[in-house]
Amino acid sequence: MDSVDLNKAVSLTQDLRGDLRELTAGFPDDKIFLLFENNTWKHCHSGWIGFRDIPDDHVLILPAGEEHKRIEQVMQAWEFLGSRGIDRQSLIINVGGGMLTDLGGFAASTLKRGIPFINLPTTLMAMVDASVGGKTGFNFRGLKNEVGVFRQPLHVLIYLPFLRTLDRDNLLSGYAEMLKAGLVADADLWDQLREFDLSGYQEEKLGRLIWRSVKIKQEIVGNDPEEKNTRKALNFGHTVGHALESESLRQNRPVPHGFAVAWGMLAEARLSQQILNLPEASVQEIQRAIQNLFGTPPPGIIHPDALLNWMRFDKKNSGNQINFTLLEKIGQCRVNCTVSEEEISKVMSDE
Amino acid sequence: MDSVDLNKAVSLTQDLRGDLRELTAGFPDDKIFLLFENNTWKHCHSGWIGFRDIPDDHVLILPAGEEHKRIEQVMQAWEFLGSRGIDRQSLIINVGGGMLTDLGGFAASTLKRGIPFINLPTTLMAMVDASVGGKTGFNFRGLKNEVGVFRQPLHVLIYLPFLRTLDRDNLLSGYAEMLKAGLVADADLWDQLREFDLSGYQEEKLGRLIWRSVKIKQEIVGNDPEEKNTRKALNFGHTVGHALESESLRQNRPVPHGFAVAWGMLAEARLSQQILNLPEASVQEIQRAIQNLFGTPPPGIIHPDALLNWMRFDKKNSGNQINFTLLEKIGQCRVNCTVSEEEISKVMSDE
Repeated sequence: MDSVDLNKAVSLTQDLRGDLRELTAGFPDDKIFLLFENNTWKHCHSGWIGFRDIPDDHVLILPAGEEHKRIEQVMQAWEFLGSRGIDRQSLIINVGGGMLTDLGGFAASTLKRGIPFINLPTTLMAMVDASVGGKTGFNFRGLKNEVGVFRQPLHVLIYLPFLRTLDRDNLLSGYAEMLKAGLVADADLWDQLREFDLSGYQEEKLGRLIWRSVKIKQEIVGNDPEEKNTRKALNFGHTVGHALESESLRQNRPVPHGFAVAWGMLAEARLSQQILNLPEASVQEIQRAIQNLFGTPPPGIIHPDALLNWMRFDKKNSGNQINFTLLEKIGQCRVNCTVSEEEISKVMSDE
Repeated sequence: MDSVDLNKAVSLTQDLRGDLRELTAGFPDDKIFLLFENNTWKHCHSGWIGFRDIPDDHVLILPAGEEHKRIEQVMQAWEFLGSRGIDRQSLIINVGGGMLTDLGGFAASTLKRGIPFINLPTTLMAMVDASVGGKTGFNFRGLKNEVGVFRQPLHVLIYLPFLRTLDRDNLLSGYAEMLKAGLVADADLWDQLREFDLSGYQEEKLGRLIWRSVKIKQEIVGNDPEEKNTRKALNFGHTVGHALESESLRQNRPVPHGFAVAWGMLAEARLSQQILNLPEASVQEIQRAIQNLFGTPPPGIIHPDALLNWMRFDKKNSGNQINFTLLEKIGQCRVNCTVSEEEISKVMSDE
């Protein structure tokens, strides 16, 4: 496992207390604020929270869950932090899954036009995905991350023992983003991930795979921070995936983000075959790996017309065409593939 | 008057229709959206609004006034724009005073993590102040611009005939920021502004003075976009000014921003005398100019204890000390002057 390097914006830590103490050394105790969601407060605060003598009333605990990733919670955070005298010399530490780090990151980035923040991701999804890239935001008008800004955290500390608090579905959800990193940029990582045994995993081995995924994302994001072009590589699986997720929310039977992305990758692998001649054997390999881990979507969620309708509202569209990142082969993708609605319908109806 | 230069982020225009057509050439008609507040819609939309064939339902008119610079109006803008299919290839044009350009700029900067926008400032304040520097935001918890981001507009077009719709108080309010530009950075501009006849002004002459103020602000902001240090020069008059403005709002008899800044400059000129030995003659000169134009504050607004209380919450503070930008001499300032509350009280009690 890579050793801790506090000069990097993201690091794996084996000494959370010590590294937090070092990272926050420039901030007085009474200028440090912590945001949790109630699950992470319950399961992930003991053993390190006393790393500094932070006032008790500097800890805000927000409700967990994607349905609370809303402006009301952002306002609650602004109110809480502002009324306790936060200023630009203060520091916010966001502890939680992607919902909390996205929302807390947005609240921090906009309060007084920007207060520095550190993220402690507690889910695999947040470690490999939300931890890198500086996307912050919340859902609005029923659309995922409809409002947000790009803003880099001061630092992201990845502490693997937090993963012990997760159930298998939650672990799998983050694993989907690691699979994606392999599919779009690193065939060897893809092979290792396919063969890795996630049940009863070995923490050090998983840590190495997480670190490789993080490095891939860092490199892609570093070349195109505001997603003008090449960063769209990371959107593989997400055009269909987001639609599927929105539709599942509308039907009141929400599917975890990573599951939606996994099934989205499957659909987009088939599109890749149509549009970029991804070989049938690769499609089969992807299908086997994804179905082994994630099974198949609940019946009725993949309804082509409904999904197309969601895709039309996707942030990533260019004008009136639907924009995809597709695979040329495993480990190599092409961004800005515009696909007609007919072709999409056809592939999705075959599901 | 400087000629139009569309390569610069800010330009004076004598052909609003033509320049808008040029600036928006890369955007289809149905991807352009306009935000007004009701006053600017009434007084400032005719003669140019047909520069492109923009759909009627792409124009949002928001309520005017500082009291509407609130999250609710930001949400209204997100809702309006999002439901009409805005995307990252769209363009928003904000038409109005600083309230509208700040709020519209924030809505644009955060919707889908950032949609490009152009500002058409319609007040003198917005032309000389809000037009440059990329500050966007709104009021929250009773505090001015408590929430916001730094984001540069694609372009700012200054069209002087909009000023003909303003009453004298409104003109004066913007003039205060021009006086400030002179005081902190350009003694010659200060002299010209002191001698300029704002009643029955000549548009071309005013245009030249506006342009010099804009250039000063551009230079200061360009050296320190996120206000880490030297940009604080622009805060002269604003520490006391913001407190005065907040207090006047609390007392339900709001004072225009520029008047608050003008009186704030007067108080901070006296502080400059105490702390940096600004000569008595300069203080007198500043006092004469400001009182000639702005008169004196309404009785009871300048209450030292109440104002100190507001200053403690100022975004610009560093820790627990109150931070000022003060004058060394006319045309030259020093940032990060921390002043004790006792000294502030003493100077303010002499008012």
